[in-house]
Amino acid sequence: MLVLHNMQVSGNCYKVRLAARQLEIPLLLNEYPFGSGKTRMPEFLAKNPNGRVPLLELENGGFVAESGAILFYLAEGTALMPDGKLARAQALQWMFFEQYDHEPFIAVARRWLHSESKQALAAKQHLIPEWHAKGNAALGVMEKHLSKHDWFAGNQYSIADISLYGYTHAADEGGFELSDYPAVCTWLKRVAAQRGHVALSESW
Amino acid sequence: MLVLHNMQVSGNCYKVRLAARQLEIPLLLNEYPFGSGKTRMPEFLAKNPNGRVPLLELENGGFVAESGAILFYLAEGTALMPDGKLARAQALQWMFFEQYDHEPFIAVARRWLHSESKQALAAKQHLIPEWHAKGNAALGVMEKHLSKHDWFAGNQYSIADISLYGYTHAADEGGFELSDYPAVCTWLKRVAAQRGHVALSESW
Repeated sequence: MLVLHNMQVSGNCYKVRLAARQLEIPLLLNEYPFGSGKTRMPEFLAKNPNGRVPLLELENGGFVAESGAILFYLAEGTALMPDGKLARAQALQWMFFEQYDHEPFIAVARRWLHSESKQALAAKQHLIPEWHAKGNAALGVMEKHLSKHDWFAGNQYSIADISLYGYTHAADEGGFELSDYPAVCTWLKRVAAQRGHVALSESW
Repeated sequence: MLVLHNMQVSGNCYKVRLAARQLEIPLLLNEYPFGSGKTRMPEFLAKNPNGRVPLLELENGGFVAESGAILFYLAEGTALMPDGKLARAQALQWMFFEQYDHEPFIAVARRWLHSESKQALAAKQHLIPEWHAKGNAALGVMEKHLSKHDWFAGNQYSIADISLYGYTHAADEGGFELSDYPAVCTWLKRVAAQRGHVALSESW
């Protein structure tokens, strides 16, 4: 069986659990509790020298790291992969956008404002305005797209939507005001209504 | 013909030019000079609301943004795409790693230390230690991989190598000491020896 090296609270790990549930792919979960430092220990670094979860461990002992690459791996040949070369590239476009322009601000704000202690947050306080400015810019780009389209790529629900749903749906925990983005809010409901949807907090 | 909205000095744009050269795909280049602000103007934002190059414009009027997604689009069905589902996912893994853990420090350090004015750099001076620490961590992850493998994915030269070559080969312009990473240096030479290789500065 596939093993997912997982951190329950991580939106990046949630994306993989959500796709696997919807594709009915069984996973064995290996949990790395938030703040435990387990992903920086030699045993884990031997599996992923970059020291990050999610990490997918295959039955043959191979590994795939990075949520976007794991989503692509699981979705190849399934209904979660957009049809056609252009739509596949556009799904990847939004997944790269998520990792470069969205996650480093929206996920990071959520981590420090929601999951870390107030004491730890104090050292990061000066970064909050930048997280919010850049995170809101990313939400603005999504809003512009979603005011004209139901989905991010290929006119269908796909791994691009799962990728962007991962942290967008929890952006309020990072101090973002989602009601400023009505098309994003409608899309969030559309995603949550898909067959087999599970919540971030749901146990496996 | 495909149109590449291009900034000559950008490593992200260079990746696309390099792959297109090696695949012998003709491109018409539309240049956005560094510092011109052209990518933030309404005419360009109508093409890519995220305001970034590279942007590929297709003959049918469609667009693909994000260097990693453009590389994937150009390489599908060619020798630059690793064979097999796992190798394709591992190529994407390294391309996501590049955009999340490498480019934001190595490319950004190069931009401010190499391309911007000393006056502009002054406002960013306090960020240099973080860029160098995180950029060196990324180079360390590459070094670990390359000490055991010739290429990043599927045991062949691929878009994963092009993606990581884009800024790694110019990391010295960001103040990085590449000679600290001997396996990376050997790999840089291996990439530059590939058929059809062109330099970042080479005109189209």
